[in-house]
Amino acid sequence: MKISEFQNLIKDLYFKQDQNRGINGTFIWLVEEIGEFARILRSKEINFKNASEELADIIAWANSLANLLEIDLESAILEKYPKMCFRCKSNPCVCNR
Amino acid sequence: MKISEFQNLIKDLYFKQDQNRGINGTFIWLVEEIGEFARILRSKEINFKNASEELADIIAWANSLANLLEIDLESAILEKYPKMCFRCKSNPCVCNR
Repeated sequence: MKISEFQNLIKDLYFKQDQNRGINGTFIWLVEEIGEFARILRSKEINFKNASEELADIIAWANSLANLLEIDLESAILEKYPKMCFRCKSNPCVCNR
Repeated sequence: MKISEFQNLIKDLYFKQDQNRGINGTFIWLVEEIGEFARILRSKEINFKNASEELADIIAWANSLANLLEIDLESAILEKYPKMCFRCKSNPCVCNR
């Protein structure tokens, strides 16, 4: 699936609720997912299924925010990461981004 | 660009550094990007170019973590968001995920 297709899917699914919640409220949900992911990372044995779900949620909430901000995430990603490191311009990166 | 292609690009670019830094160290970078994005959101007028870059960075660091955890992010996303809300099973969502 393309990055842009996923953004559109998240828009179809959740834009109305995202709009009602607003940017700040939606950001809080993103941060909550970061916290849930952190909790998985600090467990003795990382549960990879749970980690996968939390990473998917982080991506989904970032897409909700992109929709609210009218940001085309695929374009933003391609602009920042154009097949080379944005800082050292190498692939692979030779700095520490 | 497909979600999986971007994950591979981030692997090509940064996997060596990500490995050296480790999961916990890489998570701190993700959280730093969340903080930078927060700073943009709380400014009087949101700078959309900066917001785009920070969202791209959040996605990129989430991909670095997926690489370290050997998680296929596209599969994880499609499994959690299979063209309907994972909770109410509707499209558009009729709950509040």
